[in-house]
Amino acid sequence: MFKDIGVAEIDTVLKKSHEAFLLFKRVSGVKKAAFLEAIALEIETLGIELIQQAMQETNLPEVRLAGERARTCNQLRQFSALLKEGSWVDARVDTAIPDRIPLPKPDIRKMLVPLGPVVVFGASNFPFAYSTAGVDTASALAAGCPVVLKAHPAHPETSELVARAIAKAITSTGMPVDTFQHVHSSTFESGKALVQHPLTKAVGFTGSFSGGKALYDYATQRPDPIPVFSEMGSINPVFILPKALKVRGDKVAEMYAVSITQSVGQFCTNPGIMLGVQSTDLDKFSHELGATMEKIAPGTMLHPGIAAAFKKNRERALSQKGVSVIAESTEKPKENQGVTTLSTVKASDFLNNEILSEEIFGPYSILVTASSQEELIAAANKLPGQLTVTIIGEDDELLQYAEFIQLLAEKAGRVIINGVPTGVEVCPSMHHGGPFPATTDSRFTSVGTDAIKRFVRPVSFQNFPDALLPEELKAGNPLGIWRFVNSEMKK
Amino acid sequence: MFKDIGVAEIDTVLKKSHEAFLLFKRVSGVKKAAFLEAIALEIETLGIELIQQAMQETNLPEVRLAGERARTCNQLRQFSALLKEGSWVDARVDTAIPDRIPLPKPDIRKMLVPLGPVVVFGASNFPFAYSTAGVDTASALAAGCPVVLKAHPAHPETSELVARAIAKAITSTGMPVDTFQHVHSSTFESGKALVQHPLTKAVGFTGSFSGGKALYDYATQRPDPIPVFSEMGSINPVFILPKALKVRGDKVAEMYAVSITQSVGQFCTNPGIMLGVQSTDLDKFSHELGATMEKIAPGTMLHPGIAAAFKKNRERALSQKGVSVIAESTEKPKENQGVTTLSTVKASDFLNNEILSEEIFGPYSILVTASSQEELIAAANKLPGQLTVTIIGEDDELLQYAEFIQLLAEKAGRVIINGVPTGVEVCPSMHHGGPFPATTDSRFTSVGTDAIKRFVRPVSFQNFPDALLPEELKAGNPLGIWRFVNSEMKK
Repeated sequence: MFKDIGVAEIDTVLKKSHEAFLLFKRVSGVKKAAFLEAIALEIETLGIELIQQAMQETNLPEVRLAGERARTCNQLRQFSALLKEGSWVDARVDTAIPDRIPLPKPDIRKMLVPLGPVVVFGASNFPFAYSTAGVDTASALAAGCPVVLKAHPAHPETSELVARAIAKAITSTGMPVDTFQHVHSSTFESGKALVQHPLTKAVGFTGSFSGGKALYDYATQRPDPIPVFSEMGSINPVFILPKALKVRGDKVAEMYAVSITQSVGQFCTNPGIMLGVQSTDLDKFSHELGATMEKIAPGTMLHPGIAAAFKKNRERALSQKGVSVIAESTEKPKENQGVTTLSTVKASDFLNNEILSEEIFGPYSILVTASSQEELIAAANKLPGQLTVTIIGEDDELLQYAEFIQLLAEKAGRVIINGVPTGVEVCPSMHHGGPFPATTDSRFTSVGTDAIKRFVRPVSFQNFPDALLPEELKAGNPLGIWRFVNSEMKK
Repeated sequence: MFKDIGVAEIDTVLKKSHEAFLLFKRVSGVKKAAFLEAIALEIETLGIELIQQAMQETNLPEVRLAGERARTCNQLRQFSALLKEGSWVDARVDTAIPDRIPLPKPDIRKMLVPLGPVVVFGASNFPFAYSTAGVDTASALAAGCPVVLKAHPAHPETSELVARAIAKAITSTGMPVDTFQHVHSSTFESGKALVQHPLTKAVGFTGSFSGGKALYDYATQRPDPIPVFSEMGSINPVFILPKALKVRGDKVAEMYAVSITQSVGQFCTNPGIMLGVQSTDLDKFSHELGATMEKIAPGTMLHPGIAAAFKKNRERALSQKGVSVIAESTEKPKENQGVTTLSTVKASDFLNNEILSEEIFGPYSILVTASSQEELIAAANKLPGQLTVTIIGEDDELLQYAEFIQLLAEKAGRVIINGVPTGVEVCPSMHHGGPFPATTDSRFTSVGTDAIKRFVRPVSFQNFPDALLPEELKAGNPLGIWRFVNSEMKK
């Protein structure tokens, strides 16, 4: 057991973070890049010890954790590459026109600078990729912001191991010692105190709606509000069009049985709802999906709290008017296990029941059957903001549904055609975000290199002598980055 | 007098705005560009009638209003140029790698899309540039968001004229009729109802701290919070370094007498505070500045409310411990006029009195004299977030103050060397924003083409057939825009 941080200690931690910021913000991109690479290497050096610790604390299998560790180190290296390339600062240069009429035009240059200390809350379902050295930490450090990481109480030892790896990287690359601080807490009071400390400048969170919304409220109620990036999950609707059902309903069922149940359904992009117009093909699909899912044995969930919430939310959903079970694991669940479940409801009942649009975190999905295309569109309109929305359709029918796909794009941060929402690619074009309640800020992503944009703000430098300008903005472009110079993109 | 919009009517207005959004968001950049240009032309076509109306309602002189109109039309044309060029959507393309091990990489493409209906509150001090067809409206329309504009009650007739110009442009360029709607209100209730309507997706505001913060609170207290961009002004500190004072204190005094008093000091970038280390050169500067300022006659302010607030805030500041008047207009003020005022206070008193860091909107500035460089730095540290901070110094002494300039950059959105903060250049490198309380979101600008970024969010399109992709993301890059393709910037 690790000692909970007290509210008094939080003040010391944030003061140290602020002191570190004053030094860290001036570390060059190349040196920050070396730091991130060193973190990745130190994590890999922990070897099987780290994986075994995480297996013990999360019940996730070795192969999944090894993959997640690779993803985490890949993320760190992607941010490193971004920093070495350097153009991410969005440099803009407008040179002076001293003889402009009626007034001279001054020289103005702009770039992104770090916000200051960032508080990151580790997530339970990704002990590596969204936790201690996960994307929030990696992107904040890349931006030049020190991080105060609150370990997730479900995997504190795993978090300690990763924190020590980061500490080693701080030492070996000569970063300010408090560039990263690791704290433990399981009380609301300390979470609130971390968010409301005057020196905290931004917050990153991945988890439940209630947790993410609480942090948002703490931050917006400060005398000086700060941004909070809470990614709170969603039900990730999947629309299955008639012709695809007819042509390859069996393959879609196979693909979705996996997507709904992998890692015991504990992904924020889990497909929690599927929708289609009723037909014999949809019946067949439902039967096939159910037949595959019932063979998938219950799995042990991340921690007893999540298992209990799944049980409660599943039971609540199944007790709603018109909801019936199509299939569930034939094997009985043991303690803390989640029962694989496929349920169904008519769109007319779905439309009148907001509970059925709420996330059930675990291996659960509901099939909504519409009596007509109009009802399907009505159901789509009813959906709250989502991380993802997916359409399964044959090429020619997709074109017929172009308007519908436009509508769906209003609801989500990512629109997928003929795929599954699980498996979030880490790349510059990934947007992992979406309208509320999927996140508290649809304008920013928590996956991919653009995640760095959450922790920066622009500053304009007017009429600066070249010697005082940051390297990124100097006349000779010494870093050789892409810049928007007098309205022209150039290197 | 125009009829106040009732809360019931607001529902109709936002529903119409949402309907317009569904069409307007799909209008091409080139067509939106033509629309913005048509607005500029219609405003110019109003000719002297518009200027005279604004003179009557704002007490601003003809030359100033003619300049502001030119700026407003220039802004609209800059956004038009941005749309025609097209690269602002920040397109990213990562093409598929089907044979990647262990998992195939899907094709993912991302771009910025509009948020939805935007409510804009017109500002009193810029009847054109920050009002009806001002930068909030121009940037929201450019983004593809319909606008509901609440006219500022101090210049409703001017606002009506501009609104009619926009309506003409809507007709002539075939935009959805409710792309722009114009409403009048002077109650808190209707302002709140506009911000809290479920179909409102973002808010733009320029004005007082109390007004801007209230709108922010309304928005963050919604069941689904939305972004609010309140620009709430600041005191725009000016640091005058010793050598510059010695070499050209007289010229600096001349420049600042103008900056403090132009348009009766009614600019959010007005230099409300100047700071320096005590010396005979600073005394001489203070004397020269005062001597110039007392010759500047009181001017009639924008409206009686602003004049009354200036009188009250000025008197409150002058009654603070250690504050004394250096100079004020020798001519006595008439009704609703603001008295040009220069006051002074020792840094030791300034450091203990937060009231002296509050904005006094009008022709007022306070000179803070520090006993040492350390005290000057302490005063700088004490300052809240600012739109701008300015340093006046000779080239060699600026280099000595490099650390200090770094510190100042933490406090502001724009750092100016050897200039005045008034006169905000409209260009891509302008950041008109700053840490709270200057704005509610330091990450976004309300001047310059980047203002468009306030009203958009990214959406990723995964595995889309080319025919269903937006033009900006299609394989052949039919719009010829800059895109970040497989981590390489290219056209």
